[in-house]
Amino acid sequence: MKMAHMVTNCSFSPSPAVKTYSKSPGYCCNVSQFQSTKCSNLVLKSCTTTRPKRPFVARASAAVQGQTQTPLTGSQQASGHSSSKPKKVMVIGGDGYCGWATALHLSNKGYEVAIVDNLVRRLFDHQLGLDSLTPIASIQNRIRRWKALTGKTIQLYVGDICDFDFLSEAFKSFEPDSAVHFGEQRSAPYSMIDRSRAVFTQHNNVIGTLNVLFAIKEFSEECHLVKLGTMGEYGTPNIDIEEGFITITHNGRTDTLPYPKQASSFYHLSKVHDSHNIAFTCKAWGIRATDLNQGVVYGVRTDETAMHEELSNRFDYDGVFGTALNRFCVQAAVGHPLTVYGKGGQTRGYLDIRDTVQCVELAIANPAKPGEFRVFNQFTEQFSVNELAKLVTAAGAKLGLEVQTKSVPNPRVEAEEHYYNAKHTKLMELGLEPHLLSDSLLDSLLNFAVQYKDRVNTAQIMPSVSWKEMGAKPKTVSV
Amino acid sequence: MKMAHMVTNCSFSPSPAVKTYSKSPGYCCNVSQFQSTKCSNLVLKSCTTTRPKRPFVARASAAVQGQTQTPLTGSQQASGHSSSKPKKVMVIGGDGYCGWATALHLSNKGYEVAIVDNLVRRLFDHQLGLDSLTPIASIQNRIRRWKALTGKTIQLYVGDICDFDFLSEAFKSFEPDSAVHFGEQRSAPYSMIDRSRAVFTQHNNVIGTLNVLFAIKEFSEECHLVKLGTMGEYGTPNIDIEEGFITITHNGRTDTLPYPKQASSFYHLSKVHDSHNIAFTCKAWGIRATDLNQGVVYGVRTDETAMHEELSNRFDYDGVFGTALNRFCVQAAVGHPLTVYGKGGQTRGYLDIRDTVQCVELAIANPAKPGEFRVFNQFTEQFSVNELAKLVTAAGAKLGLEVQTKSVPNPRVEAEEHYYNAKHTKLMELGLEPHLLSDSLLDSLLNFAVQYKDRVNTAQIMPSVSWKEMGAKPKTVSV
Repeated sequence: MKMAHMVTNCSFSPSPAVKTYSKSPGYCCNVSQFQSTKCSNLVLKSCTTTRPKRPFVARASAAVQGQTQTPLTGSQQASGHSSSKPKKVMVIGGDGYCGWATALHLSNKGYEVAIVDNLVRRLFDHQLGLDSLTPIASIQNRIRRWKALTGKTIQLYVGDICDFDFLSEAFKSFEPDSAVHFGEQRSAPYSMIDRSRAVFTQHNNVIGTLNVLFAIKEFSEECHLVKLGTMGEYGTPNIDIEEGFITITHNGRTDTLPYPKQASSFYHLSKVHDSHNIAFTCKAWGIRATDLNQGVVYGVRTDETAMHEELSNRFDYDGVFGTALNRFCVQAAVGHPLTVYGKGGQTRGYLDIRDTVQCVELAIANPAKPGEFRVFNQFTEQFSVNELAKLVTAAGAKLGLEVQTKSVPNPRVEAEEHYYNAKHTKLMELGLEPHLLSDSLLDSLLNFAVQYKDRVNTAQIMPSVSWKEMGAKPKTVSV
Repeated sequence: MKMAHMVTNCSFSPSPAVKTYSKSPGYCCNVSQFQSTKCSNLVLKSCTTTRPKRPFVARASAAVQGQTQTPLTGSQQASGHSSSKPKKVMVIGGDGYCGWATALHLSNKGYEVAIVDNLVRRLFDHQLGLDSLTPIASIQNRIRRWKALTGKTIQLYVGDICDFDFLSEAFKSFEPDSAVHFGEQRSAPYSMIDRSRAVFTQHNNVIGTLNVLFAIKEFSEECHLVKLGTMGEYGTPNIDIEEGFITITHNGRTDTLPYPKQASSFYHLSKVHDSHNIAFTCKAWGIRATDLNQGVVYGVRTDETAMHEELSNRFDYDGVFGTALNRFCVQAAVGHPLTVYGKGGQTRGYLDIRDTVQCVELAIANPAKPGEFRVFNQFTEQFSVNELAKLVTAAGAKLGLEVQTKSVPNPRVEAEEHYYNAKHTKLMELGLEPHLLSDSLLDSLLNFAVQYKDRVNTAQIMPSVSWKEMGAKPKTVSV
């Protein structure tokens, strides 16, 4: 394997001009599983001409010196903000939808942030002919713009966490106090396109997470892993969903055991596998981990991404990567009927992306203990698909939009009418202050969709992946 | 990827002489993860000079014509033995400990059997410096000897099921009615040697099983998957262990859900991942599957392997692949103290390998319905490690062996004193007639160990892999 190539610039500036750096092409083992792709293990670092053992501590302190720290919500005792040395957070998958918003938010809050990402999410868009509703800048320009606006540096390690040599170098170099792991293939439909994508998803997610666990054990034993899971791990049981564990009394005896998992796509299954692997390493090695079983995220605007158009987050509305509510808002904006899959009784937990970043911050500021495997259900409200359609219809009317709804055949295999009651108190107890959908729908969602409606490609909206008709043969998804 | 290379011989004879065949080297993607190994995708087939679409049906019928069929135990309505066309069983991993015994047993019972195996288990022995207590013949000689003794043909497909092109060709060519899947890395200590072996184990097992599921969906939709799981998926909960599912009443509502999983090695975790993946495909695609959560297997002799020394099964007693009871018997035979890990209160389910083959036969003869994910706990008796040590000590005394026991530091992370009560009624209901340890200990175990005691390498016995000290760096396990 190629080692990650360390690139240094002593005149790192916020200008979007291309800096001088060299590339070492690295073989991305996961991507290559479904096509022969070469990508770069590229590390952008500023202001180090040599490679000291702890190159970032002093510089990062300098980067936030003189900055007024925005007070953290929730408990702050573990965040280290009272000392002169900011805590370091590695955001794996920091170029993605949740990852980018989180990286900026944490940087804004005074954390020293490094993004680790192989940028393969951008490749998926090219391969599937998809595009974000919002134009998004390159990760390099995003980071430069952030520096220009705030003076804050975000480190960038471009490479594949399935390449352990690359990941090792990133850990040894950055020495994170926390690793927030968003770096997974995160679309259920994508994982159900064909065998290659199913295998890619499980390999990429499971092996990537294993590598992160080994990197923590080997290089940063105290590092707190904050891992993005999904509420979809639980499925739709006919009993209340607890947060990770359930106390069961059976034949006169009682134990508290992992909550049973019933995932409904190869993607959701990969998260189930991750959860089991992480729980084991907490027990066997004393890893400290928080598994954030996140609901469906909506919205695009956070305080940080709203600062400049080059900081804008992606907004997926397509049938593969688009989350339900985002897609509905785009449909409403362009006069496309809201596409409800089947009966529309499918109920899930939802949250605003502003709460995603808040939850991650709370988890980092209140880390799990060594050996603790902690599970938080990360959502704020429950809605059925039909309820979402009604809310979007009503909000659309306020903007003068006439919104229709139609049922389309459900491409998934899932219950369309079911009981659903999931607990989500742990993050509230840590101080989460939710943004509720009723308040966000117009300003953070529909208005955005209307603003960019000329960029909408309606061909992307309809579901193009069928759970039942998935085949072993490679499939080209065309829109 | 290389396609599996079809090799034909028209003068296939039981002689152990090497037949004329050609090899096409194929790249084994899983093995290559921890070393650059080339192995052969080699298919041995007899008496076909061309490659007809269904080359085996007629020939296999001929192979069992005129044979007296041994009556099946249990229900036979689905076995097809009443018709002239025997049912076809693909035994994936058919060169291994459980796989070889099962392949012979099913062939003996009149099934048409094909073994699919990449023989990598033999490579592990070379790499780790280990050897079976019993000398074992090559798979080619095993199959030739079986043909010579019984007139029965076992097809052989040598290749890696992680190579989907190879697996596809095997499915299209053989067209199995059942696929018995033993083809996984099956040692907990092996998976805990180092990062490479952990990643290999999970990749190999999870992706291999995904490929089998896709092959069934694509090429043999009616094929019944019989998958070897492990009782280790459940861990050691403080409540009774049910067979795959548990009915939970919680906050006034009730549902039957997958039994919570608490695996304790990367190997055991890979089986948990498999179970979740298989359950999903049963629901989404209508796959019919039986997950055999097997206990610890002991013994070496089955009716078929006892017919000739070239049919002898492997008998692992080393610290990596040896199961507890087999290892104790070898220790007793050579005067080595029985090595109890820690307090010895670790309790597990056990079964004789003669019951393994019987259970698989029962599962095949009584297949799951389309869409059904069925879980059987496959063991016959429960013992703690201390109880096993006492049983071996007492049996040894009958042979004049003075057996000592010593506690060694537990290399694993596991409860050493715990509640354990696991259900195992479903296979009994299908007609399983157990061989109990008290009857088998002397004839099938200790006598074997004594017979081959000159082949024992005592350096292999002690544990060489530590759960807690496992590292990311490649480790050479030397004995």
